Amino acid sequence: MTRKIVVALDGMGGDHAPETVVEGANIARERYPDATFVLYGSPSKLEPLVARQRWLKDCCRVVEAADVVTNDDRPTAALRKRRTSSMGMAIGSVAEREADCVVSAGNTGALLATAGVLLGTLAGVKRAALASFVPTVKGESVMLDLGANIQCDANNLVEFAVMGSVFARSVLGLEQPTVGLLNVGAEEGKGSETLRDAAATLRLDGVPLRFHGFVEGSDIGAGVVDVVVTDGFTGNVALKTIEGTAKLYTGFVREAFKTSTLAKIGYVLASGAWNKLRQRADPRRYNGGVFLGLDGVCVKSHGGTDALGFAYAIGLAVDMVKFSLNDKVVDELRRLRLALGEPSRQADGTAGGA
Amino acid sequence: MTRKIVVALDGMGGDHAPETVVEGANIARERYPDATFVLYGSPSKLEPLVARQRWLKDCCRVVEAADVVTNDDRPTAALRKRRTSSMGMAIGSVAEREADCVVSAGNTGALLATAGVLLGTLAGVKRAALASFVPTVKGESVMLDLGANIQCDANNLVEFAVMGSVFARSVLGLEQPTVGLLNVGAEEGKGSETLRDAAATLRLDGVPLRFHGFVEGSDIGAGVVDVVVTDGFTGNVALKTIEGTAKLYTGFVREAFKTSTLAKIGYVLASGAWNKLRQRADPRRYNGGVFLGLDGVCVKSHGGTDALGFAYAIGLAVDMVKFSLNDKVVDELRRLRLALGEPSRQADGTAGGA
Repeated sequence: MTRKIVVALDGMGGDHAPETVVEGANIARERYPDATFVLYGSPSKLEPLVARQRWLKDCCRVVEAADVVTNDDRPTAALRKRRTSSMGMAIGSVAEREADCVVSAGNTGALLATAGVLLGTLAGVKRAALASFVPTVKGESVMLDLGANIQCDANNLVEFAVMGSVFARSVLGLEQPTVGLLNVGAEEGKGSETLRDAAATLRLDGVPLRFHGFVEGSDIGAGVVDVVVTDGFTGNVALKTIEGTAKLYTGFVREAFKTSTLAKIGYVLASGAWNKLRQRADPRRYNGGVFLGLDGVCVKSHGGTDALGFAYAIGLAVDMVKFSLNDKVVDELRRLRLALGEPSRQADGTAGGA
Repeated sequence: MTRKIVVALDGMGGDHAPETVVEGANIARERYPDATFVLYGSPSKLEPLVARQRWLKDCCRVVEAADVVTNDDRPTAALRKRRTSSMGMAIGSVAEREADCVVSAGNTGALLATAGVLLGTLAGVKRAALASFVPTVKGESVMLDLGANIQCDANNLVEFAVMGSVFARSVLGLEQPTVGLLNVGAEEGKGSETLRDAAATLRLDGVPLRFHGFVEGSDIGAGVVDVVVTDGFTGNVALKTIEGTAKLYTGFVREAFKTSTLAKIGYVLASGAWNKLRQRADPRRYNGGVFLGLDGVCVKSHGGTDALGFAYAIGLAVDMVKFSLNDKVVDELRRLRLALGEPSRQADGTAGGA
């Protein structure tokens, strides 16, 4: 018998909570029969919703949380109510090992701060990073950091590279994902000293990943590498630029087809093609930011997502648990320290060698 | 009688030079009857091409340049041959005030280095910046720096904001373009200290531009501001990410319409719409990076552009000359120093106030 996976859900986080959360969990449950759910939030709101869900109702417990973290709450405000809010209690249950993972569609800054405090970083990790998917001509790639660390040094970037590589093995099912550092050009001498130092380290023998070298902004969509590593400032700008440009071009196409009657007929005839296009470029498929490097699996769903998008985010969390992602991250970081000739103290809490 | 504008052209720069350069100049000449051209490069290659161009042949002089800057030349190598290369001699003619502006489709790094040395920066400008257009739902915006300065301090960003604002007035024909600083969020406290310092300065009374505040990556395509200001690293990544994403989505659309016979028929019926779309998203319309802050108008055309794209780049240079862009930049920077209570020494070379 497979072990049940316990998923803690922030029942009140997100623009369309709690409906989206409950319906999303129901969809996820159908896909992952070995998952059970604990919903944190207002029982009077959550319980009637749960009772209506075919797959969910027999494998879901509601736990009362008196407070809600709003979108306007600053991280410090969210932290203060971490013991009473639906977000804080859901994360806390992972910290206490009552649940295997937590998913929230709430305020990103609040989630990052609360998860950082309650879960702490994994052994050997200095900074947790926010990772997500980006669409490419080949399917999708992983990109990190997307905003958790505005400034990063070379060591941070190297750690992100290792964590991103393990994450890509888990969620993209790749044995040896390629990893690139985002820069202003592919040539070795390009960019800041930080980037050149990080690249030099990633090229060392024994570093546990397949380093491609530098990549440029245009290489992201071209799928040149499976994992794009960058600091949180650049990653955040790049991710939002992708979103903005996708929206712009989708709008261009939509408008173009309104320009004449022939075009409108063409549009109708091609509606099957449109649906395929929409499926392929569906932002819900890329829903789910993951905080890599925390001592507990924590997935952030887009605030404005629908139930299907939320179900994808849950699926992501469950896949990470099944893959034992965090154990593998700790192992790979230990291999990294070995390759760098550093004592593994940071990785296992004890002096290496001994 | 309007004064003739003399355009110096690097006849040998670009993937399809010299044909594209000569044909582009011919197209530009038709649009700008007050322009005359000086083509630098190999006379045996250029002269027969010029002779075939209807509009160009009577207003174009060819000057021999023995050397060519290749795409593989490092900036230092390009600098060494600045007195004999087509790129260097074309820029030199602007430095000597024999020409009003220079356009090259050659190696960007080489062009920036050579123009920097031969033209120098304008009075009051510490760092020149590379600016260009980005497509938006509203038309187009200006973005800078796109890679000339990998690291920038707050003062650099403030100068870029002033220069970008003047440039947008010139080329977008806006009286009061809005200016935004690219950041990871729109809220005041977001981002690095450098960005917060720059924003604080831009909010001061008397600073000669309309400051909108921080903008995010998704705001670029949404056209939230007319001028997006950022450091050269982030700007380069953002611009290339836009290009990559545009390519990705165009590919998605193209493939979607190949999926069924109905879709193919729809595609044909909608061909008028496609052409409109292509026109609207035509990268040639956004062709031309401009080095703002140099003491001379210098425009970089994409290396792979065609004649029409090159003509756009020439048009951009001519418009900047007609607008007296550089005089206005100097004036606005003087106003900036006044607003900041700094002596105007840097702006006019003499101590302010006397």
